[in-house]
Amino acid sequence: MPLPDWEPDYANRAARMSASEIRELLKLLDRPEIICFAGGIPDPALFPREEVADAYAEIMGDPELASAALQYSVSEGYPPLRHWIAEHMRALGAPCDVDNIVITSGSQQALDFLARLLLSPGDTALVTWPTYLGALQAFNAYEPRYDRIAPADTGRTATAYAEAAARGAKGGRVKYAYAVPDFANPTGATMTLAERERLIALTRELDVPIIEDAAYSALRYDGEAVPSLLALEARRSGHVDGTRILYCGTFSKTLTPGLRVGWICAARPVVRRLVLIKQASDLNSPLANQMVMHRLAESAYDRQVALARERYRTRRDRMLAALARHMPKGVTWTTPEGGLFVWLKLPARVDGAELLKRSVDTARVAFVPGRAFFADGTGADTIRLSFSLAGEEEIETGIARLAGIVEA
Amino acid sequence: MPLPDWEPDYANRAARMSASEIRELLKLLDRPEIICFAGGIPDPALFPREEVADAYAEIMGDPELASAALQYSVSEGYPPLRHWIAEHMRALGAPCDVDNIVITSGSQQALDFLARLLLSPGDTALVTWPTYLGALQAFNAYEPRYDRIAPADTGRTATAYAEAAARGAKGGRVKYAYAVPDFANPTGATMTLAERERLIALTRELDVPIIEDAAYSALRYDGEAVPSLLALEARRSGHVDGTRILYCGTFSKTLTPGLRVGWICAARPVVRRLVLIKQASDLNSPLANQMVMHRLAESAYDRQVALARERYRTRRDRMLAALARHMPKGVTWTTPEGGLFVWLKLPARVDGAELLKRSVDTARVAFVPGRAFFADGTGADTIRLSFSLAGEEEIETGIARLAGIVEA
Repeated sequence: MPLPDWEPDYANRAARMSASEIRELLKLLDRPEIICFAGGIPDPALFPREEVADAYAEIMGDPELASAALQYSVSEGYPPLRHWIAEHMRALGAPCDVDNIVITSGSQQALDFLARLLLSPGDTALVTWPTYLGALQAFNAYEPRYDRIAPADTGRTATAYAEAAARGAKGGRVKYAYAVPDFANPTGATMTLAERERLIALTRELDVPIIEDAAYSALRYDGEAVPSLLALEARRSGHVDGTRILYCGTFSKTLTPGLRVGWICAARPVVRRLVLIKQASDLNSPLANQMVMHRLAESAYDRQVALARERYRTRRDRMLAALARHMPKGVTWTTPEGGLFVWLKLPARVDGAELLKRSVDTARVAFVPGRAFFADGTGADTIRLSFSLAGEEEIETGIARLAGIVEA
Repeated sequence: MPLPDWEPDYANRAARMSASEIRELLKLLDRPEIICFAGGIPDPALFPREEVADAYAEIMGDPELASAALQYSVSEGYPPLRHWIAEHMRALGAPCDVDNIVITSGSQQALDFLARLLLSPGDTALVTWPTYLGALQAFNAYEPRYDRIAPADTGRTATAYAEAAARGAKGGRVKYAYAVPDFANPTGATMTLAERERLIALTRELDVPIIEDAAYSALRYDGEAVPSLLALEARRSGHVDGTRILYCGTFSKTLTPGLRVGWICAARPVVRRLVLIKQASDLNSPLANQMVMHRLAESAYDRQVALARERYRTRRDRMLAALARHMPKGVTWTTPEGGLFVWLKLPARVDGAELLKRSVDTARVAFVPGRAFFADGTGADTIRLSFSLAGEEEIETGIARLAGIVEA
């Protein structure tokens, strides 16, 4: 009996689903001989394991807390955690209340939900070239077109963007801009205040919101902090409710990614919609995880951020020094002020995906080829290196080995 | 400064997002004077709290396990848990392998993902009238039309369904049938073997898959088990890979809903697609929760199912007896062989939503009005009662009080 052919069953959107090179590469982490510069993976040595253990023990040891933790719970999230996050957002310069916060399963789910709320097929999302691959994957399910924003490039007017969006087969509109203003994935670049204001001005003219992905914002190693897009707009209007910024935060890079706790901070009408989306898509995030994250946030957030900054600053410095020492002429890279990534431009004749194959086989170094981060499929001569997971000696060795095959 | 108006920003699908009466009612659970027959909420007294506590302590107490549990993990789910589930599915008569299993955040996420994979706007989903409200909410995000399947009603041919689907404004196709064959939410009804075969025949003729929602299947209190749609088809083809059944399972009603662990068992090409959807939507379910659920499944599944059956059987019997004793003439109800629900038909002049308002105010009894379970908005004279959460005395008291106001 022949097996059923499923292809004709799928929705139109299925044509745009593709495997993440990053996620596939996660499987390489199990091979100890590979030095891994792939993935935006925090160093597990930093995880506050004992506090997590204590928090679970406290919750599960108390019959009343345990009953709540193991039961269904409200879609908007655990109220004490939402209160902590609202206070945290206020400390970051964004006046808001608990009703401006909805809990998501990491900021990946935040991106999925926001695209689901905003995009009809054929609408346009404005993104940078390159941008976070996981954002493109989340957005793709809702069949957008992409157009390019470039902080430094002020050549195109709002009208030009709107006209380009309307020229699509389905006559869509620009629905939002997506940006990672601090230490962007994949480039490590940080938008200057002037670039932030320019993006805000463009989206105001287009009358569209901005999805601000702040996944790495807490991880600054040097330089002056620049206010978030949300803080800039909330100061002007006096409250997050007056802004058009949809801020995605996460504990994944500061406390732990494994509990899958992130949040969206946005105007109340949007949050109410997002709660409905949460309800329809998975009812609620596990309450036990939210209770644990609340305890971690209360007791360990500042300390963990300080630890992470120290650890990753050292590794960034080591990676930048090793790149300078080993890389042949014709390779250039970014100098990130924070985050987890350095972005390399290879000599034009070198293909990043091709280099990865050679690298895993001969240099035993993993990284992510850059092309997947480009909505238009360009960027073949770029690669992303993460300095978060490998130790300092490994960084030195890995970069030397990688440099050896770039030249070849 | 006026606040931004967000309505023009939303995607077309947003028009179909509405608050769940069930989820809103969860908030009533906090009011101790209300006897709650709402929600499909397991009795928290059954939760294996100590085993959960031990499992978390074991995992977080081991540096290696804890590092994995608190890190990102693979989208398809924790391999030992997937192995356990594959074995469980085989024991239920569905030959399959670990690659036929993907872990989801409860079966609600399974419904969301399957609709995302299959539905383009304007396609048709076949559902019963009434059907699980949460399924309608999940499906609505992908803008389907609904058509009615009724196990007992064989009047319509496959051609008639296909033609009705093509008559939509967007010329869609029938893409799947959705069914809860055992102790359905909301009616408590179980499909006979003949009804299952009839549904399979209809979908075979339409060449569409069936989403089989098995959320309550383990909770049978009397009568003979009927094979799942998946088991019927897998026996014929020899393996799940040869079937068109997309089986959604969950630990929510047997072990605990709070950890949010469910699964889909389906043909491999579909599972590969679903893993991509999982990746794009929330990367992975929390690994710690999956590790704990694996330990619970290994050590406590059979015992917990036996406990739940005993507890809920007693409560079902008490509710059916109380209904017979107290309800006025003109009220009829189902006699479920399992699950959590009894479904009432009120006298025609009584509106379920209206009754709820009076009930919360004067009888202090909560339940779910039936209309939300009907894709066509009918069913105003129906209500759903759950017997899972209230104690026996409360059931007696609550039904007596409710009967008192139905008459009024």
